[in-house]
Amino acid sequence: MTRRLSLKKNADKRLKAGHLWLYSNEIDITKTPLKDFEAGAQAIVEAAGGKELGVAYVNPNSLICGRVVSRDPNVRLDRSLLVHRFKQALALRQRLFDKPFYRLVHGEGDLLPGLVIDRFDDILVVQLNTLGMERMRDSIIDALNKVVSPRVIVFKGDTSGRRMESLEPSIEVVQGELPEAVMMEENNTRFEARVIDGQKTGWFYDHRVNRAWLNRLVEGKRVLDVFSYVGGWGVQAANHGASQVMCVDASGTALEHVGRNARLNGVEDRVSVQEGDAFEVLSSLKAAGEQFDVVILDPPAFIKKRKDINNGERAYGRLNREAMRLMGRDGLLVSASCSMHLASERHIDLVRGAARHQDRHGQLIFQGHQGPDHPIHPSIPETAYLKALGVRVFRD
Amino acid sequence: MTRRLSLKKNADKRLKAGHLWLYSNEIDITKTPLKDFEAGAQAIVEAAGGKELGVAYVNPNSLICGRVVSRDPNVRLDRSLLVHRFKQALALRQRLFDKPFYRLVHGEGDLLPGLVIDRFDDILVVQLNTLGMERMRDSIIDALNKVVSPRVIVFKGDTSGRRMESLEPSIEVVQGELPEAVMMEENNTRFEARVIDGQKTGWFYDHRVNRAWLNRLVEGKRVLDVFSYVGGWGVQAANHGASQVMCVDASGTALEHVGRNARLNGVEDRVSVQEGDAFEVLSSLKAAGEQFDVVILDPPAFIKKRKDINNGERAYGRLNREAMRLMGRDGLLVSASCSMHLASERHIDLVRGAARHQDRHGQLIFQGHQGPDHPIHPSIPETAYLKALGVRVFRD
Repeated sequence: MTRRLSLKKNADKRLKAGHLWLYSNEIDITKTPLKDFEAGAQAIVEAAGGKELGVAYVNPNSLICGRVVSRDPNVRLDRSLLVHRFKQALALRQRLFDKPFYRLVHGEGDLLPGLVIDRFDDILVVQLNTLGMERMRDSIIDALNKVVSPRVIVFKGDTSGRRMESLEPSIEVVQGELPEAVMMEENNTRFEARVIDGQKTGWFYDHRVNRAWLNRLVEGKRVLDVFSYVGGWGVQAANHGASQVMCVDASGTALEHVGRNARLNGVEDRVSVQEGDAFEVLSSLKAAGEQFDVVILDPPAFIKKRKDINNGERAYGRLNREAMRLMGRDGLLVSASCSMHLASERHIDLVRGAARHQDRHGQLIFQGHQGPDHPIHPSIPETAYLKALGVRVFRD
Repeated sequence: MTRRLSLKKNADKRLKAGHLWLYSNEIDITKTPLKDFEAGAQAIVEAAGGKELGVAYVNPNSLICGRVVSRDPNVRLDRSLLVHRFKQALALRQRLFDKPFYRLVHGEGDLLPGLVIDRFDDILVVQLNTLGMERMRDSIIDALNKVVSPRVIVFKGDTSGRRMESLEPSIEVVQGELPEAVMMEENNTRFEARVIDGQKTGWFYDHRVNRAWLNRLVEGKRVLDVFSYVGGWGVQAANHGASQVMCVDASGTALEHVGRNARLNGVEDRVSVQEGDAFEVLSSLKAAGEQFDVVILDPPAFIKKRKDINNGERAYGRLNREAMRLMGRDGLLVSASCSMHLASERHIDLVRGAARHQDRHGQLIFQGHQGPDHPIHPSIPETAYLKALGVRVFRD
């Protein structure tokens, strides 16, 4: 018989609104002590009055002590539910994309809390971010083989999420043989995904639509890609006709990959790299009198936690100001942020402030978000994190 | 010598942040009485301390009693400034679009407060929404001829903005001869703009990018276009491969134009119309057991003023619920709102609530905004109004 997990009075509100998370301070631990639960076990969640709200997997040692896997109390997270959810996820992606390069599963957004899967053709890279999902390893492999039949499956567990769940980092090829180079395509541009030694799954699919938007506007332009990583923006811009692209990153390894990706597309003659701290490079470019038609700012999250908001906003503001100093009379700025804690309105306001500070006008002509293979769960604000503003910046 | 308009203490904050509007209660009327200003006159705006902030045109009888036309106190709104701003506006559109069908000037968003111009090839439809702009009629005609050389210019003054400025409605062909049918194109689909007898300028370009997004996802689908007007969404969907499209509108005339626009694209066999109140039609479609793969909700603004927020949100919620009842196990909902007072988060929350109410899951896969020819002024929240959510709605 499945255990029950009882919520305190009124603690069912968020769940009823559709959210999938239970916090440890919402559990009625006199009735159902969390410590009695084995980590990863599943439980029927009930409201204070006893009404069954669904099924969750439990981690008694985590702040988020439970994640709902179904609103039907008779369902369990098992191979069968995974197959069903993978089919639902795949159906959406097949409708959205011509080619098998996308995020196949986006955790809560696909009703699979704690599970992220990126697809590079017949190679799947799986992130198990919770103990509950870690327990499902074998079923996940089974279900993926049934629904997608991949050649290679890699479990890449090196996320901060895992640390919060007291899971060790680990990278493991659990099926097939990983080729030395994992090739992928985004917006008709070829890249190598850095599955083993790169960040996250080896590629960031989330900016695909925002890059597609920019690609249409770069022909003949001089482009600066700040925090370029392996050249997702910059190499695509070159491949769509930019006359010159400069990629800036603090990591020499990332910039080596920029070069490799540029060669993959035959645009290496139009892509240069500059290693260094972004703020310092922007300053020295200004000192050297350089100007760019298009500047892309896609920094790492400056605001990781709520307490970083003030410092983080200052950093975003400064970055946008420094970028605008490199723009001519009429330029295009792409200002991105992957900080969930930076609200859209604040982001726009930081760009506004930067333009005013530089005595320039801004026209907001694009507001991009994470791509459709990163679906947002409308009840879970935490699943929406990515922003990309397209701003024409000009002097009057 | 140009008159000066003095602000009260601390009333310069919004202007310094980049906003262009002055409210009548912010003016120091003991120093510079508003009643001394001729309607439409230009004035140098100064802060309480005397610092010059820019130049505005004045309407002493309007709540928004001044609109800034330049931050340079030496500049005036005249033919020369209009030419400069039209060139800036045109440069942006030419970079964005292949064909001459777009909003050429979007008021404050193009630093031309009170002026809206839509372009249908060599026909320009101009809305003068303020007395200050009304005074510039002749210079506007001159400047447009210099920058765009249109064959036809129509002044179409029938907006609510004009009423607030005590301007009479009027429609006037001020240059050339307006053809009986004004043809235009959006996303490779042909339409007739209803310049004389239609709403606003005769076409709504603002949803172009949102429609383009949907067009890629409708092949072989059964589509319902609610509040269809002349078929902007529906006829485009049919033209992009939808198997069946039903357009619903309360206006028989609008639906006649749906038919005409469908014929223009040779898709009349796949487009049907249904005249009636949207809510009633949705009910009767449900009663008849009809189902659709894609439902588009693009209602008129349910929230025109702040005081309508509660009622308006209820109406949006009800509309989204009713629409979801017509969707099968796995459908796509486009939920739009042109109410500036409906915040994005609230909009998402209404869709969330509707899905929960119908015991369905929602995945937010698209957040669209007004197109780039409707630039948002980052200091003026009032210039951002359009939202279009793309939501996959499914049963688990």
